[in-house]
Amino acid sequence: MEVSWWMIGAFGLTLGLCCWGSGTASHYLAQDPQSESTSSLTHPLLLLREVAPVTNCIYELLPARAIARAKELDEYFAEHGKPLGPVHGLPISIKAHIGPEGRENPVGFVGWVGRKNVEDANVVKIHLEAGAVVYARTTEAQGPMALETHSNLFGTTTNPHNTATSAGGSSGEELALLALRGSPLGIGIRGPAANCGLYGLKPSTDRLPIIGLSAYVLGCGTILGTIGPMSSTLGGLEIFMKTVLRSKPWLSDPLLHPIPWRDDEPHIHQDGKKLTVGVMWTDGVVNPVPAVTRALREVEEALEILTKIYAPHGGDAFKRHLGSSGEPYNSLTAWTTRDAPGVEKLSFQGVWDWKFKCDVFRYRYMQGISITLSPQRWTSFSAPCTQRLPPYMKHLNTGDWGYTSLWNLLDYSAVSFPVTKIDPGENAKDTLYTPRNEFDSWVQEHYDPKKQRDIPVCLQLVAKRLEEEKLFQALREIKDSVGVPFKDCLA
Amino acid sequence: MEVSWWMIGAFGLTLGLCCWGSGTASHYLAQDPQSESTSSLTHPLLLLREVAPVTNCIYELLPARAIARAKELDEYFAEHGKPLGPVHGLPISIKAHIGPEGRENPVGFVGWVGRKNVEDANVVKIHLEAGAVVYARTTEAQGPMALETHSNLFGTTTNPHNTATSAGGSSGEELALLALRGSPLGIGIRGPAANCGLYGLKPSTDRLPIIGLSAYVLGCGTILGTIGPMSSTLGGLEIFMKTVLRSKPWLSDPLLHPIPWRDDEPHIHQDGKKLTVGVMWTDGVVNPVPAVTRALREVEEALEILTKIYAPHGGDAFKRHLGSSGEPYNSLTAWTTRDAPGVEKLSFQGVWDWKFKCDVFRYRYMQGISITLSPQRWTSFSAPCTQRLPPYMKHLNTGDWGYTSLWNLLDYSAVSFPVTKIDPGENAKDTLYTPRNEFDSWVQEHYDPKKQRDIPVCLQLVAKRLEEEKLFQALREIKDSVGVPFKDCLA
Repeated sequence: MEVSWWMIGAFGLTLGLCCWGSGTASHYLAQDPQSESTSSLTHPLLLLREVAPVTNCIYELLPARAIARAKELDEYFAEHGKPLGPVHGLPISIKAHIGPEGRENPVGFVGWVGRKNVEDANVVKIHLEAGAVVYARTTEAQGPMALETHSNLFGTTTNPHNTATSAGGSSGEELALLALRGSPLGIGIRGPAANCGLYGLKPSTDRLPIIGLSAYVLGCGTILGTIGPMSSTLGGLEIFMKTVLRSKPWLSDPLLHPIPWRDDEPHIHQDGKKLTVGVMWTDGVVNPVPAVTRALREVEEALEILTKIYAPHGGDAFKRHLGSSGEPYNSLTAWTTRDAPGVEKLSFQGVWDWKFKCDVFRYRYMQGISITLSPQRWTSFSAPCTQRLPPYMKHLNTGDWGYTSLWNLLDYSAVSFPVTKIDPGENAKDTLYTPRNEFDSWVQEHYDPKKQRDIPVCLQLVAKRLEEEKLFQALREIKDSVGVPFKDCLA
Repeated sequence: MEVSWWMIGAFGLTLGLCCWGSGTASHYLAQDPQSESTSSLTHPLLLLREVAPVTNCIYELLPARAIARAKELDEYFAEHGKPLGPVHGLPISIKAHIGPEGRENPVGFVGWVGRKNVEDANVVKIHLEAGAVVYARTTEAQGPMALETHSNLFGTTTNPHNTATSAGGSSGEELALLALRGSPLGIGIRGPAANCGLYGLKPSTDRLPIIGLSAYVLGCGTILGTIGPMSSTLGGLEIFMKTVLRSKPWLSDPLLHPIPWRDDEPHIHQDGKKLTVGVMWTDGVVNPVPAVTRALREVEEALEILTKIYAPHGGDAFKRHLGSSGEPYNSLTAWTTRDAPGVEKLSFQGVWDWKFKCDVFRYRYMQGISITLSPQRWTSFSAPCTQRLPPYMKHLNTGDWGYTSLWNLLDYSAVSFPVTKIDPGENAKDTLYTPRNEFDSWVQEHYDPKKQRDIPVCLQLVAKRLEEEKLFQALREIKDSVGVPFKDCLA
């Protein structure tokens, strides 16, 4: 009986599943990991034991839970002759703060050690009802709100393609695990997918359930968070979205948009139109628009708004949660919540004013008043995922996030996808390049294709708010017609 | 040519249009109001001149704008042989803070006199593009957030059914005008519709555009506001929702749900089920659930959350806007923004905590953990619109709003509808009634069917978040089968 394989095959999640092979769900998890008949690449628990020290991505393994679950699924299949749901037998890993029932959930704070989840997060419940097997929890950044994955609890999570570089953050651990084929599907956020050569989706807020997640910013109305799926295949992301949205989570969660997964209708080529993809060459100057100064001013405005609404408390809340145990800031969280220019504790009126500025920015952006990227002119839109590649041996320095956070500010949907890998022969340093500013200069200085060899290069495709289905249709067409990735980033 | 009449007839907005009769759009507005051929009940501008002193509901009339607009519409029809849009020629009145371009917009504050609208509010733009004629702006309450309509700028707006009683608030002026047949369709909020015997819809937030409205709470993330239509007919509300949502406002306003008006699909009688309507007899004890104490505790919790998220600033913002001119509080705004128990300036963490409590309350309510009204058990749901009828000669005392604000807290959709009118012969005072508490006692004491004669009695029908279409289908069926209103409240 090949339950897992059959189900996964049916949904196209083949790449991610290479660690599973065929067999019943419980068979592979239950057999002795030391057995000669199981190679390290076909037994997930054994694989994880090898993966963890390489990248430091595992918070805890849940073998007993996973094996019991897999047996339960096999029994269900034996009794009913059909799978429990669309992801019957699929092993999923989850970022620690999306915690399962009864497990500790420190959310990257030393002072939170000992806090336990009362019940499964809703997104976990949905996957369990659909047949998934939760078998691993991954580490997370301090907070967790940083562009690399480091905390005083777990240390630094590294990039499996080049362990001298960062896996990114705040979900670097999930991506590190996925890139190592330690998990076919993970739940976290898209940023680090770019560092690890994977697919990651950031949907618009309130499309996926976040009830049951832990975070120190719960209730903060200025900026809303979302989770998203990450996988080594585009199909992996799709299976996640289908699984969650076909369960109609809005019927029990009043915070969610009552919008089903609309993949049975065309979102591109409407009225015979061609797929139009805009290209954002930099976040400072946008080709082919000439009004450079205005574009720069708008980017500056966006960043100012971001700083205010991400830390309206001037970093007080973050500081308090560190302070409860006396643990130190790491350099990334010190920057984003304390030292970045513009971080200040706002007055009540200040919070309302900046939230309103954010609404107005979103509105203006959509009118095409913003010339940075006139949304009227594009169906979807391609941009870098990051200003720079993860630098060699320079952990904890990724402070500029303009290429991804703009879409957070706008609440647009974005998917990251692998394109190629760094090849020292092809990607020589441009020694004639004149940096724009000190940040740009830093990035240039730390670019070394030899030392950064094999690091994946990813782009992101962006569409407007709640247009996740369009993203998938457009990216599939781009993949088919352009042939990305040009190099197998997971080879 | 009967442009207005034809269009309105097609959409069923007949009752509200009785002041128009037949003729071109400009003909009626342009003719001399003093002319013998125009009775006071068929010429809107003349009617308004009579209406204003009776109830004090008009902030300003816009005859020049209205006449020019009507001419424009007639020219369009003459040239194209078809109406401009679905509300071609329909006269609409709007609450002052939903202001049109270039007009003053004080939002009920003396200190704001002189502020002007830069452009039409989006909801006004949409109606103009659909062919409407804006011809009157109505007064508004101080703030405007009160359950009666009074400000130091405009004075008190009274109930046209009994001018010794209040029209309600904060949109009492719109309703007063509608009840007098001075307007077929108004934009404001539902509360006062109950006092005036009209239909009023409070949709869930972010379904109707609020860009361009003025309010002192813009950017306040704890509680979101919404506008809604009011009309003497249910069809009037429907024409409004269709007009707005068929314009796909979410394509240009990223704050809105991308949900069309879904009236082509059934929202009741799904899978052959009967329409189930729950009844909320009181907001303290709910029939038929026996766990009275628990229900009371939940209501208390809801009211506590409301107090915190409506005035997270402890009333500071409101006080500041009064203070800029030195104008005094009226008793209603003093209560809601300053004196009500629990009003306090929250800390940053306090705001997040109460916002999170609000989210959790909404979530729990939907799980049916709340026993007050288990949503699992009802399709839609009927409740009083107010604890009491507008008391005789006791303006500025309506401080308790549990029957409507619970649905604001939950962000549910609600429509008020007329049922009957006070008849001293049928509605004698129950002298044996034992009041629950001092508020209840006050209500009993001030109930006098003789003095409150002819005041309409309304109920509201409630459905879950973003279920406005279900509300309309259910209310239509209730009207057809039960035969409400039992008395013509506008007779």
